Amino acid sequence: MSNDTDQPQPNAHIISIDAMGGDRGVPSVVAGVALAAKANPGIRFLIHGDEAEIAPLVRKQRILDKRCDIRHADETVGMEDKPSHVMRHGKKTSMWATIDAVRNGDASVAVSCGNTGALMAVSMIRLRKALGVNRPAIAVLWPSLNPQGFNVVLDVGADIRADEHDLFKYALMGSSYARNGLSIEKPRIGLLNVGTEEHKGRSELREAHAMIGNGARRNGYEFVGFVEGGDIPSDRVDVIVTDGFTGNVALKTGEGTANLIALRMRDAFNHSLFSRLGALFAYTSLKRLGRRIDPRHVNGGVFLGLNGTVIKSHGAADATGVAAAIQLAIKLAELRFTEKLAARVASGTLTSQDMPDEPSEITQRK
Amino acid sequence: MSNDTDQPQPNAHIISIDAMGGDRGVPSVVAGVALAAKANPGIRFLIHGDEAEIAPLVRKQRILDKRCDIRHADETVGMEDKPSHVMRHGKKTSMWATIDAVRNGDASVAVSCGNTGALMAVSMIRLRKALGVNRPAIAVLWPSLNPQGFNVVLDVGADIRADEHDLFKYALMGSSYARNGLSIEKPRIGLLNVGTEEHKGRSELREAHAMIGNGARRNGYEFVGFVEGGDIPSDRVDVIVTDGFTGNVALKTGEGTANLIALRMRDAFNHSLFSRLGALFAYTSLKRLGRRIDPRHVNGGVFLGLNGTVIKSHGAADATGVAAAIQLAIKLAELRFTEKLAARVASGTLTSQDMPDEPSEITQRK
Repeated sequence: MSNDTDQPQPNAHIISIDAMGGDRGVPSVVAGVALAAKANPGIRFLIHGDEAEIAPLVRKQRILDKRCDIRHADETVGMEDKPSHVMRHGKKTSMWATIDAVRNGDASVAVSCGNTGALMAVSMIRLRKALGVNRPAIAVLWPSLNPQGFNVVLDVGADIRADEHDLFKYALMGSSYARNGLSIEKPRIGLLNVGTEEHKGRSELREAHAMIGNGARRNGYEFVGFVEGGDIPSDRVDVIVTDGFTGNVALKTGEGTANLIALRMRDAFNHSLFSRLGALFAYTSLKRLGRRIDPRHVNGGVFLGLNGTVIKSHGAADATGVAAAIQLAIKLAELRFTEKLAARVASGTLTSQDMPDEPSEITQRK
Repeated sequence: MSNDTDQPQPNAHIISIDAMGGDRGVPSVVAGVALAAKANPGIRFLIHGDEAEIAPLVRKQRILDKRCDIRHADETVGMEDKPSHVMRHGKKTSMWATIDAVRNGDASVAVSCGNTGALMAVSMIRLRKALGVNRPAIAVLWPSLNPQGFNVVLDVGADIRADEHDLFKYALMGSSYARNGLSIEKPRIGLLNVGTEEHKGRSELREAHAMIGNGARRNGYEFVGFVEGGDIPSDRVDVIVTDGFTGNVALKTGEGTANLIALRMRDAFNHSLFSRLGALFAYTSLKRLGRRIDPRHVNGGVFLGLNGTVIKSHGAADATGVAAAIQLAIKLAELRFTEKLAARVASGTLTSQDMPDEPSEITQRK
């Protein structure tokens, strides 16, 4: 493939994968890679980790034959390792090598099931923040009532703080992700807040409201204003912008609620002979329902705002979950998403500060 | 009923109800009162609002005969009215009169479907904050995997801010609510935070962690430490403490997720002849499932930390929802919850500051 710019381009057809650090261990990751390989014949994989453990598992998957390079790493980042420790002492870990493969252009997107904080820290120091970004964000696809089936929510946990400038960048990054990842030409953006008038008082939210509104026309999105938690899975918006503390609580609350309902449903269908018969008749429909609300099928938080795309798979992901995260990586790699996002944020940064759409609504900068 | 203290006691058998301000209007409220009346033969009701509209509806409900006084109010608080405006100009509203009936001892608990912000504002100025409380909170019962079926979450929106002292008071108030409302002798309390180590950095959360931990033994609760959004519906805790911004987003995200899944379930069962047959067979079980996850059956946010108990029913509540809120009011009235809570917070306030359980872990006060 020839490059269309002067810069060296990463190979869009190679995905870098950290085999270590997931709760279910290497077998789930390799099985997930095999599932993704089957669905994507043109893609190759770089797998990082303990070669002695990975190699036999890869050999057993015939679909991975000649499509998979294993790069041995001596060390593994544990779920309890502190990000600051990994930043200083993590050079020999599989996570570090997974990110470095993207940094070096050996692969286009990195995927890891490991410790989120450590993965963000390593990604920050190895890939560096993109021009104009102060705080990178983690974006997820959230099941919704929209035709595309998902909304984008960010930040869900890269940083517990976000000021008005960060929130504006999240709007730019989120709309770029929705445009590329979900094919929505003009994404509708909402800023997460709480209901009553008097509560609309956090100053950074008021200022972000003005900045995101001012930047709408120039950056090709629509701003619907403040939205509430109930709007996250709705069809009122495509992108929900919030700080990483609130976004993380919302994400985990949504997952917890879905799990509770799934458990209750299982109880209900197991309750009597009639209900078990009912489940049998409705089997196909229930299975399709399961697929639509199964979090494993939308696994993968995307780190936005770095010079390179990194996908955090759920720590507890099984093969299906890992395959979903890799599928997302392949999609973003083929779209050359990293480059498009960088261009969007860089241009949005310049214009929004200096030229609001409506001169009468110029955002006051401190 | 004789008083067991020197103070005049509100009549535990009278509930004060605001008939105005709900999204579905007076008919839903009166129908809800009738449902509650049927289930609670010993209870009487004070209904506030437009007499011309309320009286004919009450007359149609034979169960309300001689159990219901209507108190006319000229004005209604609208959903869009600002709390500050209602505080200054709301004396003639049904909401104001509903709260004043509790203040005057004519009723023991107040229920309203109106504007949350205005209801909290009127409750604050008419009932006043309880001794030792700086920020009152709104607590809800959240469907959970616990044997009691619910967890207590607070604050879900009384105030967008909460410092470590407020969060400690929320722990005291929440455990008192769990003890009285859910009959849990020694409630387990969790403090809501986000996952990774590095993120446990908000200073008020670290300090609240120490204060709530120190107060555990003396105040008869167990402190499980930090919990995440996914733990809200779990059986790891009985009470989840957080600030009103985060709690409100979590509550509405949970509701939105449940609604999304309910819609998808309906689609699934309507999909084919087989799935419709399945739904028929599983009808009873599905109906029971519906009751267990139906937010209408756990309707009612309780305002804690005031000299009087106020219950905010969902604005969109139908008769079933209104009845659930009134049922909760009756339960709390019969338990004399207001008095018990006040005693708990007042004693917890004194002891926690001066005498931590473990002298080696004394919380540093600024």
